[in-house]
Amino acid sequence: MKDQNCIFCKIANGDIPSATLYEDERFRVIMDLGPATKGHALILPKEHFANLYELPDEIASEAFVLAKKMVTKLTETLKCDGFNIVQNNGACAGQTVFHFHIHLIPRYKNDQVGLTWTPGVLTEEDKAEILASFGR
Amino acid sequence: MKDQNCIFCKIANGDIPSATLYEDERFRVIMDLGPATKGHALILPKEHFANLYELPDEIASEAFVLAKKMVTKLTETLKCDGFNIVQNNGACAGQTVFHFHIHLIPRYKNDQVGLTWTPGVLTEEDKAEILASFGR
Repeated sequence: MKDQNCIFCKIANGDIPSATLYEDERFRVIMDLGPATKGHALILPKEHFANLYELPDEIASEAFVLAKKMVTKLTETLKCDGFNIVQNNGACAGQTVFHFHIHLIPRYKNDQVGLTWTPGVLTEEDKAEILASFGR
Repeated sequence: MKDQNCIFCKIANGDIPSATLYEDERFRVIMDLGPATKGHALILPKEHFANLYELPDEIASEAFVLAKKMVTKLTETLKCDGFNIVQNNGACAGQTVFHFHIHLIPRYKNDQVGLTWTPGVLTEEDKAEILASFGR
């Protein structure tokens, strides 16, 4: 299924040109036009799924194996020092295009990319509530 | 394979207790003791792999399907508004324990979690260099 109004559907299926690093029947991997660092790439499924919640297991499974493959090759090319894999779901999580995608972000020593968070504390109350919801 | 000096090997295999949300033969999912937000969880494989580069495809494949399953269930429990999936490789990428793990970070409207980056520009030079390394 495609969404006629989705820019990533158009890019993934080649209706809008992109800097494509890899393509197969299911996925296209492109270079991000607004890269966090040199080499920032995106994995896009060709079918339209808004987010991880909608993604079929089979595509989820293949997507992460593809992430590993791309990150391995990009690390060789870029000689970067690390990599973040980031997948955002929901506007409040930083998702700006509502077609599932995985960010592959190369990291370099002292690159000053943010992508961190401030650790809080796991309270006994939260722990008990969440464990209980998992039957534990 | 386990690494005798790895704290996540000990946690994943139950030698150190943890707030466990899910466990199977391959994985343990625990609550992060320093959560970015309420419900922050970690997926740990029981075998020791330092990072995504070392992870066998079969485990990569299962790990992301498990991420989807956990995120779906956690969203029901927490009534959160979104989710970030973050997987860090290398100290400069924010990896602090060198046993592969996936962060599942619930997001709430106006939660003020960072986890963003400043978009740069994809230069023609970088684009040509990286495309060429992929034979394109």
